[in-house]
Amino acid sequence: MSERILLGHGSGGKLMHELLRRYFLPRFSITETGDAAILDKVDGKLAFTTDSYVVTPLFFPGGNIGELAVNGTVNDLSMMGATPLYLTAGFIIEEGFQIEDLQKILISMAGAAEKAGIRIVAGDTKVVEKGKADGIFINTSGVGIIPDNVAIHPGCIRPGDRVIVSGPVGTHGTSILSQRNGLTFEPPLHSDTKALNHIVRKMLDASINIHAMRDPTRGGLATTLKEIAIETGLCIEIEEDKIPVLPQVKGACEILGLDPLYVANEGIMVIFVPEEHSEKTLYLLKGSGETLASIIGIVKEKPEGIVLLKTLIGGTRIIDMLSGEQLPRIC
Amino acid sequence: MSERILLGHGSGGKLMHELLRRYFLPRFSITETGDAAILDKVDGKLAFTTDSYVVTPLFFPGGNIGELAVNGTVNDLSMMGATPLYLTAGFIIEEGFQIEDLQKILISMAGAAEKAGIRIVAGDTKVVEKGKADGIFINTSGVGIIPDNVAIHPGCIRPGDRVIVSGPVGTHGTSILSQRNGLTFEPPLHSDTKALNHIVRKMLDASINIHAMRDPTRGGLATTLKEIAIETGLCIEIEEDKIPVLPQVKGACEILGLDPLYVANEGIMVIFVPEEHSEKTLYLLKGSGETLASIIGIVKEKPEGIVLLKTLIGGTRIIDMLSGEQLPRIC
Repeated sequence: MSERILLGHGSGGKLMHELLRRYFLPRFSITETGDAAILDKVDGKLAFTTDSYVVTPLFFPGGNIGELAVNGTVNDLSMMGATPLYLTAGFIIEEGFQIEDLQKILISMAGAAEKAGIRIVAGDTKVVEKGKADGIFINTSGVGIIPDNVAIHPGCIRPGDRVIVSGPVGTHGTSILSQRNGLTFEPPLHSDTKALNHIVRKMLDASINIHAMRDPTRGGLATTLKEIAIETGLCIEIEEDKIPVLPQVKGACEILGLDPLYVANEGIMVIFVPEEHSEKTLYLLKGSGETLASIIGIVKEKPEGIVLLKTLIGGTRIIDMLSGEQLPRIC
Repeated sequence: MSERILLGHGSGGKLMHELLRRYFLPRFSITETGDAAILDKVDGKLAFTTDSYVVTPLFFPGGNIGELAVNGTVNDLSMMGATPLYLTAGFIIEEGFQIEDLQKILISMAGAAEKAGIRIVAGDTKVVEKGKADGIFINTSGVGIIPDNVAIHPGCIRPGDRVIVSGPVGTHGTSILSQRNGLTFEPPLHSDTKALNHIVRKMLDASINIHAMRDPTRGGLATTLKEIAIETGLCIEIEEDKIPVLPQVKGACEILGLDPLYVANEGIMVIFVPEEHSEKTLYLLKGSGETLASIIGIVKEKPEGIVLLKTLIGGTRIIDMLSGEQLPRIC
């Protein structure tokens, strides 16, 4: 076995089978051959999602592309109130990629899958010529089941709902960009990548009436809130001094000229709950280790489709979606 | 809207929403926002699969990367006896890619999905810098339901089973390679890419006792048969003069120095059925337009794990998996 990926590793022939047997199959719940995984009988509404990961650098403080790919798709399912069950993983690898790095990534994926309690059941490996990709790209697709009594989507949001973030904003994107720019911080800045399904499960088990959830990845908290405001035709009013941001993230954003509200997150969620459930939700989040969880705002009827930010100095700013490109290849 | 893909089209912000609204949403069954698609209640065993497509050139005689990505994943589900229901589509696009080409690909995907009777329910778009990918890569993942009375997998293959191919071998790979080498043929050579789910449904409806099926893509018919021989511990004996190959494919393979048995296919399947169902299967395939379908061999007990080819001149050759790389980026 060569220590680098060869074109032949994507051929479907002997080399590919050797690669799969040696590195992929021991880590995932995949049988070597067969065109699709056959899974248990399920009974419920399906949730189905996909995401490709092209983050650079592949290894960053707090994680790598592998766990990002598992956690990101687990979270997409969780945000619909689904119990994530199965993942597929599709790899596009550049010829010459270090097999040692591939192995690290696969180990991280297996670890993240175990933590989230999901199974990676099918995979695919393609190899492209040197210079035709950038190391490795990973696609994960996920299937989950939505319990019959669960309906969580922006259509359920009502005026008066409270807006909660489960953790500090801007941490993932800032970590990646600091790494690219060679900046270091004390205490160190790490990506927040993690799976949110267990904490969502706790909220559901505690009978919290979640109206909607979303994980604010690309485009950051600001873009996510604006999407929801447009979708619901409601106004979301948030308060700047309530939005948790780590001091290192504030510092890095100042140096790099970024607004943490627009920076990608990979381990937090925005939750919309009725007012009477907001304190209970906060209590549960904090008790689950999300010590910086915060009620950041409220949903109002008007102005329709608008996100308003009440600033620290007492002004009000209209928040729009991210324009142009702030941080390419953040996930 | 620029006529080329910009990095900002992958940002999660305004440009991305505009791209989705304008080109993706009208073609697919996707709602713009939301982290995962919520689908109907299903009751049955799930089949779940994934494949990334990196074919070059993106446009080739008989198809393009878009329909290949839909048909390939539909076929992977069909080979397990599953009814394909839903697909996701993940795009990794190189900065500067022509939006006109993207549009052609999306139209092909929508057309292929309609033909196959499946819905593309979720998607993802990432953009990487110029020179960090090769035009466009597409991942499709698919979910299907396996009816309770269906169990189709190599474990069901028995000695005495007949081996049937549904169409001529080597057509897809030869078409791609001819295109790359500027070869033309009379009559023209076209990729065989197509969805096989309707014809599989016909076989199931006709109560054909299918033991196993597989679509011989990368590595070709030879590699697929060898995989099955190893998996079952049985011997598969095939006859060279029974294997259908188009005359143009024979010609191209001679010029290009290829063995059609090892060349990728995208629209045929190998079917294992008990002897008493083999003629009925052939009749049904031919009646469904697969006029070159052929019973090419038989399953024997020994020698274990071996594929034997009885050649035209009366000899016997042992068939192994593809070694090394014959044709990179064929799918």
